[in-house]
Amino acid sequence: MEVTLKSIGVVRTQAESVPRHWTVSEVEGTLEIDPEYRQGIKDIQPGQRMAVIFHFHQSPPFDPEMVVQTPPHRQGERLGVFSICSPRRPNPIGLSVFEVLGVDGTIIRVKGVDVYDGTPILDIKPWVEQG
Amino acid sequence: MEVTLKSIGVVRTQAESVPRHWTVSEVEGTLEIDPEYRQGIKDIQPGQRMAVIFHFHQSPPFDPEMVVQTPPHRQGERLGVFSICSPRRPNPIGLSVFEVLGVDGTIIRVKGVDVYDGTPILDIKPWVEQG
Repeated sequence: MEVTLKSIGVVRTQAESVPRHWTVSEVEGTLEIDPEYRQGIKDIQPGQRMAVIFHFHQSPPFDPEMVVQTPPHRQGERLGVFSICSPRRPNPIGLSVFEVLGVDGTIIRVKGVDVYDGTPILDIKPWVEQG
Repeated sequence: MEVTLKSIGVVRTQAESVPRHWTVSEVEGTLEIDPEYRQGIKDIQPGQRMAVIFHFHQSPPFDPEMVVQTPPHRQGERLGVFSICSPRRPNPIGLSVFEVLGVDGTIIRVKGVDVYDGTPILDIKPWVEQG
């Protein structure tokens, strides 16, 4: 079953390099949301954590040989793609949890950026550990 | 920017109804992964938590009026779609974190199911709070 998704906005950061994972990132950036979704972000509050789902738009197409890979920081290991965070995966989507610093119109300022400037955003969800 | 994604497997559960969120779900089920990705799940271990990204395939198309919605359990509130977990969102994708009970070939047994039987799976990622 296939589904076609369209970006709702884009990540902007001035960082020239980003950490490999949001859990180790102090990098700040902004989520620039398309104007049609302005009302959709009106309840996002500073201090909240939000799960953000991306399109890894710069990833080359997935190759069946990449179903196991060696992550850069785990040399010598051959790990299944669903146990690692490689951007080269069957569906090129990423997931990070960012801390919200502020919201101004269609711009969400965040901390914890681990994706490149220009990465398309597919969805934003409240991150709740408790139901 | 658009991207077309293809399911990597499907969720199976015998539960006739599921809780509204994985944080309050004790429901068990299985992730039935397509055979071509068998090696991709070989390193998933019982006791781990995995982030699973779904296609909400039964959701009707998104309507611009749904950029704000009233969740069933928060009557009277009109909340931006990116602050709630409604399946009716610009891109019909879901995110849950499941506890792994076991892996057998292409079948991952999990706990915490909050999606319907038959929901297509787009991605599985290790859930790590520490980098």
